[in-house]
Amino acid sequence: MSTNPRSTIPFSRDALDQVLKRRFFFAPAFEIYGGVSGLYDYGPPGCAFQANIVDTWRKHFILEEDMLEVDTTMLTPYEVLKTSGHVDKFADWMCKDLKTGEIFRADHIVEEVLEARLKGDKEARGISVAPVEESDDKKKRKKKVKEIKAIKLDDKEVAEYENILAQIDGFSGPQLGELITKYNITNPATGGVLEPPVEFNLMFETAIGPSGQLRGYLRPETAQGQFLNFSKLLEFNNEKMPFASASIGKSFRNEISPRAGLLRVREFLMAEIEHFVDPNDKSHPKFEAFKDLKLRFLPKGVQESGSTELIEESIGDAVASGMVDNETLGYFLARIYLFLTKIGVDANRLRFRQHMSNEMAHYAADCWDAELHTSFGWIECIGCADRSAYDLSVHSARTNEKLIVRQPLAEPLIVEKFEIEIAKKKFGPKFRKDAGAVEKWLLARTQCELEDLAKELKDEGKITFEVSGVEGKIELDTEFVKIEKVTRTEHIREFTPNVIEPSFGIGRIIYCIFEHQFWARPEDEARAVLSLPPLVAPTKVLLVPLSSNSELQPVVKQVSAALKKELIPFKVDDSSASIGKRYARNDELGTPFGITIDFESVKDLSITLRERDSTKQVRGSIEDVISAIKGITYENKSWTEGTSKLSPFETQAAE
Amino acid sequence: MSTNPRSTIPFSRDALDQVLKRRFFFAPAFEIYGGVSGLYDYGPPGCAFQANIVDTWRKHFILEEDMLEVDTTMLTPYEVLKTSGHVDKFADWMCKDLKTGEIFRADHIVEEVLEARLKGDKEARGISVAPVEESDDKKKRKKKVKEIKAIKLDDKEVAEYENILAQIDGFSGPQLGELITKYNITNPATGGVLEPPVEFNLMFETAIGPSGQLRGYLRPETAQGQFLNFSKLLEFNNEKMPFASASIGKSFRNEISPRAGLLRVREFLMAEIEHFVDPNDKSHPKFEAFKDLKLRFLPKGVQESGSTELIEESIGDAVASGMVDNETLGYFLARIYLFLTKIGVDANRLRFRQHMSNEMAHYAADCWDAELHTSFGWIECIGCADRSAYDLSVHSARTNEKLIVRQPLAEPLIVEKFEIEIAKKKFGPKFRKDAGAVEKWLLARTQCELEDLAKELKDEGKITFEVSGVEGKIELDTEFVKIEKVTRTEHIREFTPNVIEPSFGIGRIIYCIFEHQFWARPEDEARAVLSLPPLVAPTKVLLVPLSSNSELQPVVKQVSAALKKELIPFKVDDSSASIGKRYARNDELGTPFGITIDFESVKDLSITLRERDSTKQVRGSIEDVISAIKGITYENKSWTEGTSKLSPFETQAAE
Repeated sequence: MSTNPRSTIPFSRDALDQVLKRRFFFAPAFEIYGGVSGLYDYGPPGCAFQANIVDTWRKHFILEEDMLEVDTTMLTPYEVLKTSGHVDKFADWMCKDLKTGEIFRADHIVEEVLEARLKGDKEARGISVAPVEESDDKKKRKKKVKEIKAIKLDDKEVAEYENILAQIDGFSGPQLGELITKYNITNPATGGVLEPPVEFNLMFETAIGPSGQLRGYLRPETAQGQFLNFSKLLEFNNEKMPFASASIGKSFRNEISPRAGLLRVREFLMAEIEHFVDPNDKSHPKFEAFKDLKLRFLPKGVQESGSTELIEESIGDAVASGMVDNETLGYFLARIYLFLTKIGVDANRLRFRQHMSNEMAHYAADCWDAELHTSFGWIECIGCADRSAYDLSVHSARTNEKLIVRQPLAEPLIVEKFEIEIAKKKFGPKFRKDAGAVEKWLLARTQCELEDLAKELKDEGKITFEVSGVEGKIELDTEFVKIEKVTRTEHIREFTPNVIEPSFGIGRIIYCIFEHQFWARPEDEARAVLSLPPLVAPTKVLLVPLSSNSELQPVVKQVSAALKKELIPFKVDDSSASIGKRYARNDELGTPFGITIDFESVKDLSITLRERDSTKQVRGSIEDVISAIKGITYENKSWTEGTSKLSPFETQAAE
Repeated sequence: MSTNPRSTIPFSRDALDQVLKRRFFFAPAFEIYGGVSGLYDYGPPGCAFQANIVDTWRKHFILEEDMLEVDTTMLTPYEVLKTSGHVDKFADWMCKDLKTGEIFRADHIVEEVLEARLKGDKEARGISVAPVEESDDKKKRKKKVKEIKAIKLDDKEVAEYENILAQIDGFSGPQLGELITKYNITNPATGGVLEPPVEFNLMFETAIGPSGQLRGYLRPETAQGQFLNFSKLLEFNNEKMPFASASIGKSFRNEISPRAGLLRVREFLMAEIEHFVDPNDKSHPKFEAFKDLKLRFLPKGVQESGSTELIEESIGDAVASGMVDNETLGYFLARIYLFLTKIGVDANRLRFRQHMSNEMAHYAADCWDAELHTSFGWIECIGCADRSAYDLSVHSARTNEKLIVRQPLAEPLIVEKFEIEIAKKKFGPKFRKDAGAVEKWLLARTQCELEDLAKELKDEGKITFEVSGVEGKIELDTEFVKIEKVTRTEHIREFTPNVIEPSFGIGRIIYCIFEHQFWARPEDEARAVLSLPPLVAPTKVLLVPLSSNSELQPVVKQVSAALKKELIPFKVDDSSASIGKRYARNDELGTPFGITIDFESVKDLSITLRERDSTKQVRGSIEDVISAIKGITYENKSWTEGTSKLSPFETQAAE
């Protein structure tokens, strides 16, 4: 149970949910049809907040680093995702209760049941469990475990459960099956036996075209579209390395049992960077500037020992010690930290958790998640992985298109290598329309493969192979092909770049910021505030005439025009509600500034500026007030710096 | 065949395609896998151009009118699209050649074959047909008709064909079948007989959730998500009418045979506005300000008479005469015109075409398409329809949720009406968990339905009905329900708003702008220019040091910093290519300004500003040059106004 430092009133998820719903930040999609779990619509303030975060992301990452932004399709053919590994491996484990037909996500049910038993154990031991969090959890997570039984466990069992929970993200399906058997985990509602976990692919499938024969999926990530365009991007970048591409767009995941609101959804906005780098040189020119930044790490060794204690140290030290694999990865962790804290994440509730060995893809060199703490626990919001050369290599192997970098060598290199020579003229008559494909296949072989083929050609007098898309086996003898080891002087180095990939789940970040910035005024629990930073707040200013007297209208118009000219998003509230009510409404909307127009304003064109969090008020000319708003919102000025030209103002009106 | 007014060299679609490909504006998606027709990726300049157009759209429409932007999901359950009519009616007609298995879109094959015959007729009559356009067409449209046969037709037949082609968008499937039979239209490649047209639903289908039982589609438009949130949006707008919501996002259409590049794709970006308005009052407060704007119309009467002659008149006259149904519709046509011409559409190649009676949805009051002329003919880029109360009504009827506006009446109204009285207490015991649904169903009945029910109750002593989601027939007698005609004084008016919907296909607009703004320098056909307006050009400035001498570097850095500070997107090109080559590259990228830094710059910090279209150059201080760029790009200044502080400059370097 956490409390915002601005208030003594404990955080209430129920209260937050009510505000987000009442102000239409977001709502279940198709609600009048009963809704579909895992699908949400953003209303006007949520949509504007999201747009501002995306805009900040674009400036912080894309513009700052001159990244190449692309917009690629969501519909993706089967072949691409088969090659990338998603058809075979992008799956969760699910268990079915054969009697009721209910489907559970295997890791979730293990986690929930063990957590419930630990809570029951605490109760039995007379250790108090916070009741508010409990009831929130039950209501909002749609938990399967409806009741905590106060049963004391062995100390040994408690330790085992805690150890399992610390590693819950790392278990395979069969391992989860063993845990289910070993700890007798059943359907919490009925006690029914669960079938062993089976894999469920999380991609949405569809058919492209009228014949229904081209199988496709909705992309599970934007990354593949970037990899497939690698050669075009390298050319666009005038063949210069390293460089990064970036993409912002929706991705899809057919979750088994979506829960926890925006944290686990089936359609979500991602922002992904693919930074292409020389595998022999993962240094980063700007790393030096950030090396003293302190971050909080949870490395894999600590987790594997069953602990979750954080290590706080500078990113420079973390890279120097090898805990973080390389400078480029470290650079991005630092930049991620700066981005998150800029848009409203509480630095004290942010940690970088390293993937454990059993959790990390086999090709990944290293992987760190930026996790944010919420009332649901620690939530993975950003993955930052070194994907090595995996993706470019597999797509290249599958398509026979070279996805490589060619760089002039500083000094020529003398190398021994296998080379293949093809009797092109004979290919046409022999293979007809397939000639090109066969040739391409031969020319795409690696050195190791050529060595094997050379041996085969020598031993058998021919080579035999298959080419995807060409029917039957192909046999070629020395009339068609020669493969020999030769000595060459090379002036060009060819290599497949490695990829460092920071991948952001925008919706999750948005929800965590809501939790981090939500509080209630100590003097009145019912008065909630969403302290969104001015830079990303949906609306920057609420303009309120003190009364509906038409005398005030010309000043309202003048201030409106001035705000519009400066492109500062604002709303006018000239409703008959009291000033206090109007401000309270906008505190919930996260509007950082209020401008009050009163009868003095008509005389001298002075207006009052109110700050949302402190409710402080200052007064000055229209020009100075707008300049203060601009400075604080867009130029990173503090309240004191921004309002230096304005005078303190005591309000008479009760808030 | 059209030519850009800036050049005497005729437009070449091949040349444009090569530039768009070479500069990676866009490319076929999954190209290294052979591509998938109808799917395209945007590279960095295309992506930036698209982002700038979207940004301009947001300012021109959403900010200007204070519209409520929402972001709703693409995944949509079956029930929603069944109700909206898309499951039954969002389809094209396709014909199959049973022998070859080939599938043709019925209207396309009729159009193509008749067009080819008309061309053949012209050839036979010795009327020349432009050969360049021909060959482009064949190559790029993937036309099914590969060969034009010079066969003279009867004059009567020519007239018939021309009449059919003028109305080609208006035929139903059976009508197309009749044309195919009557004019003996066959598979152009084989002469094979085509099966009668059958409907093919254009939505991509998928299954939501692990059980596979919740059928869903990818949305074909963003509109439905806006309609379903109507009540929340009205509340957010403090119940004020009229108001508009807006949404920008991808939609999907499983085209039968995509062709013509970006003009007919399976996944596309849409920007849609739903303007909710009182059906009794479709006036618009800002119409007056635009009423003198002259537009070019192609009304339905003209088309139905077989002509395509345009009528040019003011939007004020068009609404006054009833040609355009109402002010709000007229207002949006005017705003659309201003938006399009701002982002680079040639006003002379823009027309507003009204839907013919047989083409318009039965519920629509009026519908106009903004069409842009290209080498493919006139292309529908924006639809602007009055959808009446259709969508809100059908969703309300299906879900029993009221989607209405309640407004206080100026004077109370005495009305006779049917009212229903429910014995709530008896509903619980009788219907248990279904009690709420039955009650809701009863309370959602219209006056006409209540009249019928009242009669039934009186005649039979009971009413019998079914409620979706509740099993079996429901019978209620007078113990449970009373329905009577009463006289009431009403203070509130309830109504279902009408919807005016301007709907933009961003990709199509983008392609049309490319065609409108592409030309070759008269002195050299190979030097192509893309005259994108500065406001939306992907990059605004190319910064070129005259030589790679390191002396120039400090000035390059200084100018870069100044541009960055002003958030003006720019690129530095310090490659060794000649100045002329570097500018030529950027003419193709549509970069409107060049800044040259030479050895004079090092001495006095003066720099040269080059304008892309005229290649004019002027010179001045860094500050004045940047201020000129800002003024022309963002403040709508002309070149002359913007550069008033700069001096003419004659370059020595050959371009």
